[in-house]
Amino acid sequence: MMESASHEKVGLLASWWVRLTAMPNMIACKVSEIAKNTKKLGQDDPRRVFHSLKVGFALTLVSLFYYYQPLYDNFGVSAMWAVMTVVVVFEFSVGATLGKGLNRALATLLAGALGIGAHHLASLSGQIGEPIVIGFFVFLQAATSTFIRFFPQIKARYDYGLLIFILTFSLISVSGLRDDEILELAHKRLATIFIGGSACVIISIVVCPVWAGEDLHNLIAANIENLGSFLEGFGDEYFKMLEDAESKDDKAFLQAYKSALNSKSSEESLANFARWEPGHGRFHFCHPWKQYLKVATLTRQCAYRIEALHSRLTAENKVSPEILNIIQESCTKLSLETGKALKELAAAFKEMTKSPSPETHMAKAKAAAKSLRSLLKSGLWEDTELLEVMPAATVGSLLLDAVNCSEKIIESVNELAFLANFKTVEATVSLEKSQSGKLDTKEKNPNTDVVVTIAEAPSVLPENAKKVGSQRVEV
Amino acid sequence: MMESASHEKVGLLASWWVRLTAMPNMIACKVSEIAKNTKKLGQDDPRRVFHSLKVGFALTLVSLFYYYQPLYDNFGVSAMWAVMTVVVVFEFSVGATLGKGLNRALATLLAGALGIGAHHLASLSGQIGEPIVIGFFVFLQAATSTFIRFFPQIKARYDYGLLIFILTFSLISVSGLRDDEILELAHKRLATIFIGGSACVIISIVVCPVWAGEDLHNLIAANIENLGSFLEGFGDEYFKMLEDAESKDDKAFLQAYKSALNSKSSEESLANFARWEPGHGRFHFCHPWKQYLKVATLTRQCAYRIEALHSRLTAENKVSPEILNIIQESCTKLSLETGKALKELAAAFKEMTKSPSPETHMAKAKAAAKSLRSLLKSGLWEDTELLEVMPAATVGSLLLDAVNCSEKIIESVNELAFLANFKTVEATVSLEKSQSGKLDTKEKNPNTDVVVTIAEAPSVLPENAKKVGSQRVEV
Repeated sequence: MMESASHEKVGLLASWWVRLTAMPNMIACKVSEIAKNTKKLGQDDPRRVFHSLKVGFALTLVSLFYYYQPLYDNFGVSAMWAVMTVVVVFEFSVGATLGKGLNRALATLLAGALGIGAHHLASLSGQIGEPIVIGFFVFLQAATSTFIRFFPQIKARYDYGLLIFILTFSLISVSGLRDDEILELAHKRLATIFIGGSACVIISIVVCPVWAGEDLHNLIAANIENLGSFLEGFGDEYFKMLEDAESKDDKAFLQAYKSALNSKSSEESLANFARWEPGHGRFHFCHPWKQYLKVATLTRQCAYRIEALHSRLTAENKVSPEILNIIQESCTKLSLETGKALKELAAAFKEMTKSPSPETHMAKAKAAAKSLRSLLKSGLWEDTELLEVMPAATVGSLLLDAVNCSEKIIESVNELAFLANFKTVEATVSLEKSQSGKLDTKEKNPNTDVVVTIAEAPSVLPENAKKVGSQRVEV
Repeated sequence: MMESASHEKVGLLASWWVRLTAMPNMIACKVSEIAKNTKKLGQDDPRRVFHSLKVGFALTLVSLFYYYQPLYDNFGVSAMWAVMTVVVVFEFSVGATLGKGLNRALATLLAGALGIGAHHLASLSGQIGEPIVIGFFVFLQAATSTFIRFFPQIKARYDYGLLIFILTFSLISVSGLRDDEILELAHKRLATIFIGGSACVIISIVVCPVWAGEDLHNLIAANIENLGSFLEGFGDEYFKMLEDAESKDDKAFLQAYKSALNSKSSEESLANFARWEPGHGRFHFCHPWKQYLKVATLTRQCAYRIEALHSRLTAENKVSPEILNIIQESCTKLSLETGKALKELAAAFKEMTKSPSPETHMAKAKAAAKSLRSLLKSGLWEDTELLEVMPAATVGSLLLDAVNCSEKIIESVNELAFLANFKTVEATVSLEKSQSGKLDTKEKNPNTDVVVTIAEAPSVLPENAKKVGSQRVEV
């Protein structure tokens, strides 16, 4: 018994010793990992670094209130509220900062007025009644406001305002019991909040502004582009034409669409922020942000179809080569043209222009769909087992679904282009072609061409956009 | 010109008058709508009403600090921080409240200590150097902390703590320039924050607690159940067997699965809150919340497949009745049994028990899949066009996909059951049957039975669970 206990002790000590000696290595490892992550975080979006510096700057600026004697004499301890406002209100995007600032200012104003009123009413009810009345008011407004915060529409835009409303009302009506200079207090608090809030808003607009509206615009463009990249490459990938040229790294375009699956909440919050933003650059004050959410919803629905297509890539593939050969051309063409249409749509959308080329590509995609349908109708299949054809048929059917979804996306983007007055470019040449229904047949091996494009610049839209532009001239 | 202008004026006046007379009606309409929405909001989740009352109660309680002379003499204006803490920290769930409270308390403690240190260091550098050093410190910590808030892991759990850290450090180090009683201030602030925070935590745990962990548990169970309901009803719906008995209202079960598509962000935040919660009821402190997220991810992937299936319901259906008749039985059986498996899984999961019946149903589903495959292999198809078979083949293929996904869900739930020590119930009878491979054929018209269940209680899990239980006895 004793021996085993001492053995255990030795074992425990030894394991501790091992851990202790491994510690410096572990710490060094951890530190280098954190350093790497930090660098990546900054490189992924350098605006993060600027934002941090902006917050530091605004806070140091507002701290002057505390420091300079004349300013301090004016505001006293209330200057604290300016610091607090900067810390709480300064958000990453202009829209979020403006929304919080306005919420805070208006809620403070309203709650201050009501708080003073409540305090006045309570003071009428005598020494004993006063705290009871005040307590009742505080309870009533806190419970009501908290319940109002559950309304989804209010939560989306005015949640912070209601929080500040509860806070200010409670503080003012309660502190009224102690402080007869309640009006002066309210005035000072409002003034300092105004100073802090405007410091935030001005700095966030003037120094490297981050516009939520622009982020939303780019996010949706990127999502549509990712769907396009997937479809553009899917045909080749599924029919394994690229087996010799492919490598694992180039397949990022097959995963990129996944970001569209779960972007709903960020899109909605960006749209909410964007509605607070003043007109900037190519975005007006009443930009149709709601239409953006419609486009986003359709994009997500298309992404669900593509998720089903993606699962086909990993499914066990028992289709015989002969069957694949029959449908390969039309399926690849269908997928490629739909992908091109979405990518051109994304490029034009990103530049806020109306382009007819997505429709040109959609026309080609529809022609491919037609030839796929007639292939499936033909008698080529009589000798084959249905089970063997099924995977290919499923892919064809899902692709046809994806074409439908893509058409809906294009429609909703066109509607958005109309609502937001996108500019029209290079309409004449391509439109004529698409309307005459003649499809281009001169393209030399379009598949390889596209693959090269993807391998060169899988996710850099401007470069693709340039290529799309040059292609358009060729067409 | 003049005439048209006066016409315009009259028209404008008239339209204003119309609007003005319509106003009372509009207001009455709006008010009744708001009242309806409010009632619905409260009825959907009565815990919202309780939460509002709890916040009001906590706030009134803490206001006593301001009111009672002896307490006020102790804390003075610092008592304000207690009110502020209650307003800001009191969240809907216990986990969120605890997380915010701990974040606030620890951040205040840490930032207070560092702030005092910074103030001391600055005071060593003389009258002129002091504000510069302080300003430098404030800038440095604000910029650094703001950047740290961008790390996703830190944002998820410690975002609020970092905000309070910036706030407290700035306030203490800056106010140090004015106030020599800085230690007393820090002590008072900590004490009042502690009082406010513990009031929140105690009230949120003692009075009708809302556990984020339980919400997460129920959310995932409901999502799995909704997938099950869809699959259970899909077969009949697709093959239009129910045309005579159906009505629009009963089809809620075909839409319910959509909630699983976009629940990722709420699941993640619930899991984050749940990790702050102490053990309660059937949940221990170290409950495997991460495994919940894995189950949720698989559920969502299954929901994507089901979205593709759902689109088949609305797609143009040009399949000839003969073709449908051939595959109908096995497809319906496949879908029904997978649906039953998921619903039983959800019921057992909700009750935190291990049940073998999902596996029994999965065995039946697999048998149906096998018969579907052999049907597709058979020579029944030789006279038909592939285009006609394609929709049916796609549905079959997607159903087979859904079976695979469901199996993965069952596996991950079993893993969770192992990690969280779920209890085993009624293992013997059903297990034997599933292992012997004999499939039950005595069921009297299972389809109608299930449809009645759905029509009666489309989303109330406990009732379904009871029914599932009684069915199990029959089997």
